[in-house]
Amino acid sequence: MDRKKTKAVFFGPLQVGGGAPVCVQSMTCTDTRNVKKTVAQIRRLEAAGCELIRVAVPDQEAAQAIEAIKKKIKIPLVADIHFNYRLALAAMESGAEGIRINPGNMAREKIRAVVKAAKERGVVMRIGINSGSVEKDILAKHGGPTADALVESTLRNIALVSDLGFDAIKLSLKSSDVATTIEAYHAIAAKTDYPLHLGVTEAGTLVNAAIKSSIGIGTLLYEGIGDTIRVSVTGDPVSEVGLAFGILRALDIRRIGPDIISCPTCGRCEIDLIKLAADVEKRLTGVKSYIKIALMGCVVNGPGEAAEADIGIAGGKGFGLLFKKGQVVGKVKESEFVNVLIDEIESMIPERIKKVNKGV
Amino acid sequence: MDRKKTKAVFFGPLQVGGGAPVCVQSMTCTDTRNVKKTVAQIRRLEAAGCELIRVAVPDQEAAQAIEAIKKKIKIPLVADIHFNYRLALAAMESGAEGIRINPGNMAREKIRAVVKAAKERGVVMRIGINSGSVEKDILAKHGGPTADALVESTLRNIALVSDLGFDAIKLSLKSSDVATTIEAYHAIAAKTDYPLHLGVTEAGTLVNAAIKSSIGIGTLLYEGIGDTIRVSVTGDPVSEVGLAFGILRALDIRRIGPDIISCPTCGRCEIDLIKLAADVEKRLTGVKSYIKIALMGCVVNGPGEAAEADIGIAGGKGFGLLFKKGQVVGKVKESEFVNVLIDEIESMIPERIKKVNKGV
Repeated sequence: MDRKKTKAVFFGPLQVGGGAPVCVQSMTCTDTRNVKKTVAQIRRLEAAGCELIRVAVPDQEAAQAIEAIKKKIKIPLVADIHFNYRLALAAMESGAEGIRINPGNMAREKIRAVVKAAKERGVVMRIGINSGSVEKDILAKHGGPTADALVESTLRNIALVSDLGFDAIKLSLKSSDVATTIEAYHAIAAKTDYPLHLGVTEAGTLVNAAIKSSIGIGTLLYEGIGDTIRVSVTGDPVSEVGLAFGILRALDIRRIGPDIISCPTCGRCEIDLIKLAADVEKRLTGVKSYIKIALMGCVVNGPGEAAEADIGIAGGKGFGLLFKKGQVVGKVKESEFVNVLIDEIESMIPERIKKVNKGV
Repeated sequence: MDRKKTKAVFFGPLQVGGGAPVCVQSMTCTDTRNVKKTVAQIRRLEAAGCELIRVAVPDQEAAQAIEAIKKKIKIPLVADIHFNYRLALAAMESGAEGIRINPGNMAREKIRAVVKAAKERGVVMRIGINSGSVEKDILAKHGGPTADALVESTLRNIALVSDLGFDAIKLSLKSSDVATTIEAYHAIAAKTDYPLHLGVTEAGTLVNAAIKSSIGIGTLLYEGIGDTIRVSVTGDPVSEVGLAFGILRALDIRRIGPDIISCPTCGRCEIDLIKLAADVEKRLTGVKSYIKIALMGCVVNGPGEAAEADIGIAGGKGFGLLFKKGQVVGKVKESEFVNVLIDEIESMIPERIKKVNKGV
């Protein structure tokens, strides 16, 4: 699929838009003023592959904490600001590579001050419109936070800074309603070429967030829309990163982490495939290398149906056929499935796979 | 969104296509010959809302078991057959309302026998093409199981039965590759008006299945394509039903079960929102009534951002504002969040919510 061309913006060395790979971001849920906890969470996110991190900046102390946080992390940081232009200025002074702020909330001279600082420091501004941020007159005109309302609010906010010659803009238009989100991004992608940050807001806990985000973000990415994604999960933000790469991997937009295809099992299956899939998935936690692994319940269809897999097992009764790219290369006892697969996979990827104690 | 018009087929009383609600189906993973276990699994699926069930029929004993199974379940049943036309005949004789079989695998006179029996009994035939079932000449022509190959195979299989005047056909074109799946359904929806069964095959364990299925099925449903859906999970099939309704609910195609919107929390949040969301979700397990519940981390934005929710909590410090349709209706202590919410929700829906012991 062709990706829509957008302008490039730079969060330090990280390019977003302009043909760069779709990048994955998250947001901390720690108190930003607690540098130690915030750094620890960002490091876990970095380890999971997170490429851009946002932190809430509710006050001056939080804005100033960014300086200390930045010293201990590798990925660029975006300061999330509500209303207060002084916090935007302080966050930029502390080294934030991006700010998320809606200029519509600020007086003209304050916008001017923020834009001036952002220009001087090469800071990106995300205009992040969502259902709750739409201006009252626009809500009244559209009868609520519809997709058109989100788009009109976005265009109004863009104008406030682009009139000042500021162009390092990234956009998001989020609704907790999936269809509204998709429609809003469709419309804005047709009207501007600023890079787009995709997300469905307030998507809920892990599985519901996976559903809503995969439909919303996935539909748009499939159409070539979107430059960076953030999955919102009510839960550990590390899970947001896993889901985001899962979406990108499912659409073959980025090849990071193992792609495990496994059948749902049926009355024909004679091995414990559910346990096998869970065990293999667990052993491969944290692996970043892309490899396509097929775990299939029956020998008749397995190797053929999963011919595109780099490696796979197709289960018989108490044994399985090991296959690579659709060719059977060996026969394995069921008790040896996991060990044989992990050894083979390790020989096929550049990474080491974490050892576990026997019997796990 | 407008839904694509398709022909209607009938699995007993259940209409699929022709403007009927998009229905949810699953497949058992028990040995079909084990009537007791199979019935127990189908009953759990029925309780979860499953509307159509498929069982594997690898042999005559399984085909005959359908008769006993059917006596103990309420939803219509589809027999999944590979190759063997005798099993198709036996399954229909046992009362299956549908068969899944690819006529391309059978000799002409055998197709004729199956079609004759299906016509007499009013049985629906699902032609279920997937990457592994595509004929060798078509694979060779397209260089593999591409979307075009799936479509060509489907059209060839349709012709084999429609030439015999058989029309009670449902189609599926599945690949474990999400983009291929979407493309194949796009193409077939443009070429035929048979009802479509959507699914991404071999989608993996729960979370990965949620991602792949939500993108594949969700993108198509968003475009108005699809008459029935099956999410494939390597795991308990009951989870397939939950994910399927989650997809339909996220796109507002069917309103079944509570829609919980909850923010991902950030440095501004002063309540334990992750626990609250998990607790509320747990208490509402099994509830079929639709209600939109918002669990928001901050009082400033909460009620406004979630104005469309029927009920919600926006957390402050140790307390929260209870709101309905964006209007604050009360103030609640954090320790009382779950109990107050559940009581309020119960008063707003026709169902009873299961009680739990104090302290849970």
